[in-house]
Amino acid sequence: MPEFQQIAILGVGLIGGSIGLAAQKRHVAEKVVGIGRSEERLARAQRQGCITEGTTDWQAGIRGADLIVVCSPVEAIVPLVEQMVPFCQPGTIITDAGSTKQRIVDTLHSSETIRGRKDVYFVGSHPMAGSDKSGSDFAVADLFENRVTIVTPVAETERTAQASVRKFWESLGSQVLEMSPGQHDAGVALTSHLPHVIASLLAASTPESLLELTSTGWADTTRVAGGDVELWRQILSTNRGHVLQSLANFEKLLTAFRASLEAGQDEHWITLLKQGKHHRDIVGS
Amino acid sequence: MPEFQQIAILGVGLIGGSIGLAAQKRHVAEKVVGIGRSEERLARAQRQGCITEGTTDWQAGIRGADLIVVCSPVEAIVPLVEQMVPFCQPGTIITDAGSTKQRIVDTLHSSETIRGRKDVYFVGSHPMAGSDKSGSDFAVADLFENRVTIVTPVAETERTAQASVRKFWESLGSQVLEMSPGQHDAGVALTSHLPHVIASLLAASTPESLLELTSTGWADTTRVAGGDVELWRQILSTNRGHVLQSLANFEKLLTAFRASLEAGQDEHWITLLKQGKHHRDIVGS
Repeated sequence: MPEFQQIAILGVGLIGGSIGLAAQKRHVAEKVVGIGRSEERLARAQRQGCITEGTTDWQAGIRGADLIVVCSPVEAIVPLVEQMVPFCQPGTIITDAGSTKQRIVDTLHSSETIRGRKDVYFVGSHPMAGSDKSGSDFAVADLFENRVTIVTPVAETERTAQASVRKFWESLGSQVLEMSPGQHDAGVALTSHLPHVIASLLAASTPESLLELTSTGWADTTRVAGGDVELWRQILSTNRGHVLQSLANFEKLLTAFRASLEAGQDEHWITLLKQGKHHRDIVGS
Repeated sequence: MPEFQQIAILGVGLIGGSIGLAAQKRHVAEKVVGIGRSEERLARAQRQGCITEGTTDWQAGIRGADLIVVCSPVEAIVPLVEQMVPFCQPGTIITDAGSTKQRIVDTLHSSETIRGRKDVYFVGSHPMAGSDKSGSDFAVADLFENRVTIVTPVAETERTAQASVRKFWESLGSQVLEMSPGQHDAGVALTSHLPHVIASLLAASTPESLLELTSTGWADTTRVAGGDVELWRQILSTNRGHVLQSLANFEKLLTAFRASLEAGQDEHWITLLKQGKHHRDIVGS
């Protein structure tokens, strides 16, 4: 027995497409409607089994949906939700897959449009899964398995909807953690946004003439730098304060490492290598 | 017809074991003798097919070898080569797989022991292949395929031996580049040692309580931090000057990125993201 009769997915790329695949494979929904701007990309996503049908007409696409998952770039999420809410059937739950949460959750809960519909429920989410690749071509049904999804309730969040959203991600194979949007944004600044910036700068600073001297180490360390620049512009812009803090802390650590290497205070930098290995070994492959 | 009758590999770990596997698979040598300190590890490497026989007695192990490949941690290479040279048969070629080259090559060519044997030839090498894993359990026959090996001749290098060493790595599937030890060390400081330090510091600076918020991005970016700390201590110590320079340059770039993010000079940091993606896309998966 599916938990939802009909799911609408806005944006059928890597994340949206993988949600569609997983929802069908795990019988979470009977019908998965993809909403996008390109007929051609929707048709491809349908052929790939990501969605059961696709439409470029969002009003038609959300008709009958009891769950809407917005998988658009972070800056598009608020305007899309505001646009859709007046057209949702009573009881509709809306969640998203945005990589930053504070601005999205704050803006939506203070929006007049959304406050006007007490029978439509927004719950912020962030599935911590992804890739440097984009598009439904790279969608996989097991993307969320053994991965963490963060759900970010606030005082205004309707508790039944929150429980449904939690259960939704769990039914896709994900482990769910709940925390405030601010806690989320501070955490992922360190675990996702800082690594992205560092990887990009490493790749950017390697002279083109030396790229032939790179090996698997460079390739791993810089992999995420291949991600879509516009998506990352939006993520870093909407989490600027926390990212700045994480960059400043990292710079201090880097300076301390260099100073100790320069001064021959080898115990200091070796301790940092050991601490890095310790944390890396905890996470595993 | 094999190119060598007998290869001796000193240190049958990930690199040494993979050389043994590749040399046999590609019929580069008839006999591959592994030399190590642990009978048990040598027996395992032999069962895994990395070597045709193993011994803890290095004098016995190099007897009859026309090529010796030293795959020990970088600080051990010079003393091992100095110890072996007086016992080598005339015409023996010795190469190594050390990640830093200047100190090794300089020390060996100014060593009295080695200058006394005009009929034994040392040629420095660095196969740019590896893993954060160590031990022959992770050895694979295709480790060097489509990977670069750098050979570092100097004025004192015997040209026929240099050509043989080049051909040896090529016959294992590697693309060979030749450059001076100094050029090598400056290059890998940027393409290998800097990424290692950065990855270690990223992992070290992520609070343990936030490790559950990491995803594939963090895992990729920090993967090399799981490498053996003692091996990396030796690498960074023997390439200290170049590593310091690369760290100082990276700090400047990081500070510039942060300053522009803070000042809202978005074009500047977006350009760096684009440049990073450009370089990453050139290298590919």
